[in-house]
Amino acid sequence: MGQRVFNFNPGPAALPLVVLERVKMEIFDFQGSGMSILEISHRSKAFESVVDGAIQRIRRLLGLGKNYHVLFLQGGASTQFTMAPMNLGVVGRPLDYVNTGTWATRAIKEARLLGKDVRVVATSEDREFTFIPEEVPLNSDAAYLHITSNNTIRGTQWSSFPGPGAAPIVSDMSSDIFSRWFDPAPFGLIYAGAQKNLGPAGVTLVIIREDMLERVPKELPTMFKYTTFSENNSLYNTPPCFAIYVCSLVLEWIEETVGGLDQMESINDEKAQLLYTFLDGQDFYRGTARPDSRSRMNVTFLLPKAELEKEFLAGASEAGLVGLKGHRSVGGLRASIYNAVTLEAVKALIDYMKGFAAKRG
Amino acid sequence: MGQRVFNFNPGPAALPLVVLERVKMEIFDFQGSGMSILEISHRSKAFESVVDGAIQRIRRLLGLGKNYHVLFLQGGASTQFTMAPMNLGVVGRPLDYVNTGTWATRAIKEARLLGKDVRVVATSEDREFTFIPEEVPLNSDAAYLHITSNNTIRGTQWSSFPGPGAAPIVSDMSSDIFSRWFDPAPFGLIYAGAQKNLGPAGVTLVIIREDMLERVPKELPTMFKYTTFSENNSLYNTPPCFAIYVCSLVLEWIEETVGGLDQMESINDEKAQLLYTFLDGQDFYRGTARPDSRSRMNVTFLLPKAELEKEFLAGASEAGLVGLKGHRSVGGLRASIYNAVTLEAVKALIDYMKGFAAKRG
Repeated sequence: MGQRVFNFNPGPAALPLVVLERVKMEIFDFQGSGMSILEISHRSKAFESVVDGAIQRIRRLLGLGKNYHVLFLQGGASTQFTMAPMNLGVVGRPLDYVNTGTWATRAIKEARLLGKDVRVVATSEDREFTFIPEEVPLNSDAAYLHITSNNTIRGTQWSSFPGPGAAPIVSDMSSDIFSRWFDPAPFGLIYAGAQKNLGPAGVTLVIIREDMLERVPKELPTMFKYTTFSENNSLYNTPPCFAIYVCSLVLEWIEETVGGLDQMESINDEKAQLLYTFLDGQDFYRGTARPDSRSRMNVTFLLPKAELEKEFLAGASEAGLVGLKGHRSVGGLRASIYNAVTLEAVKALIDYMKGFAAKRG
Repeated sequence: MGQRVFNFNPGPAALPLVVLERVKMEIFDFQGSGMSILEISHRSKAFESVVDGAIQRIRRLLGLGKNYHVLFLQGGASTQFTMAPMNLGVVGRPLDYVNTGTWATRAIKEARLLGKDVRVVATSEDREFTFIPEEVPLNSDAAYLHITSNNTIRGTQWSSFPGPGAAPIVSDMSSDIFSRWFDPAPFGLIYAGAQKNLGPAGVTLVIIREDMLERVPKELPTMFKYTTFSENNSLYNTPPCFAIYVCSLVLEWIEETVGGLDQMESINDEKAQLLYTFLDGQDFYRGTARPDSRSRMNVTFLLPKAELEKEFLAGASEAGLVGLKGHRSVGGLRASIYNAVTLEAVKALIDYMKGFAAKRG
């Protein structure tokens, strides 16, 4: 058995060690059932309490009112790119989108594939998505305004959200949900693939406001309707039980060990500040995101020459630092420092970066 | 920690103990990566070898030709009820369905919701789905013929498949795939939620023949097209990594420990015969499926009086036998004896049933 490494993967990503320990401990016998969590019925009381416990923690962490439904779906954010416009489009009202990178671009593409009237109301495409547009028009005729709260590939993040305006906000929060608290009130729909801050790949969190459910067209295929999940507590068909269970353990860790989202945010701030302060205080590495738009989840940076990347990554790997390669579509380097990445890991990264710069600078 | 029980759950269901042992052993450090399988990138070589290994085992076990694609999707068979007609419908050609129970009924409903011309060519609905229709017309004008190979709720199973005819067969094999070998040639599409014979809930196996992919309409949403998965080796977006990993371990068990599908079928035959022979040799319990249509995966039976069910189930639970309740839509009792349920478990069940009959008969 090798040693545990410092994991900067962009997702699937690091999980808290205590969560893995619980999974290991319970793998043969979940809560005295004599069965693994992988083997118990999704209709059993034991599993219902896993789902309900996870939902209650999400409600408490975000301070969700009773007018929000918390659902567990499958298919990742990519499936939500289609489900959101399919379910929440309103005839005669355009769908407004802010384009802040690859995932927003895909969301726009899928809405257009459905034949929807899509309006891109703000974009940072002309400057390689290195910033979050500050001017976002809040059009009252829009059915919704879609944003991507954090952009993993370009390392940008909304520091505060637009609005509230007349149209509800729909947000892909896959890569920063539960990294900080925010006011849910302006949001009609929030969706997030779990595999960054919430749990393993294979489950998608959907938070939807009651009034949005009234928009869902009755004739949609059953599995593509939000109401199918809201009316059956996410148990219309067999859900991804194990992935939901691991999410429930991560949520327990955030709430009980970390102490909630304010504390989670402080820790995330400390990690990000440490790394950005280091980047700003030297001139070997160069951060790619505009400082006012920097992500506290994904720190993207370049070496003086792209040819050095291989050596940087190989040395990092030897030092037990993995997952630092930038997205294949843009190159460069990226440190994803999600909730479960420790301050110790960030310090180890900075030490390594200092040493590499000293050697090659 | 309690003792492991005999698990007759209909799905999620029992997994081989050796599979759980591997999961436990590798939970902190997958193949020397220093990361859990829950934390590694789906774009890493280690994970690619998990996916490719699983695909190769499936190819060998079923003897699939190169003209078949093996894909991993999300959303369960319920999502396939929509995707199959959405992708494989052909304008001007009806979709033929055989209705053998709840899941077939749902598949028919979803095809009709899409506005497809659905023809129910055979049904056992008039006799409470207690048998598999023997006369199934093979219409050459149909785009496909849809069947449900095993019906978990009513305990029936196709002992041999119709055809081959002019139209490709599309089959929901969620509850009996890998329980026996069959000739894949007549099948254009096979789909199966993993949570019975293949692995945990949260991944859907799709086996699709090359010529079927030519039917996929280009304008479909990306995540609802089979071609998105076939063209990206199931890695267009983040797949349910852990669920696929557990499937790979189950497939390894079938191939290397059990010895393949012929051996798997012999073991399943022995278990089913033991239970049906017992049922036929007494008159306290009554099997509900017509003998020629009996399932070797789900054995459904009734007590002389429905009022005795509670006592039967409570006693079974005390004896370490769980998951024996019939589906909530039909009542009665059901023993699901999938691949990972041992002969020992079936013997323990029969012993308990004998004792209960002696006491209450």
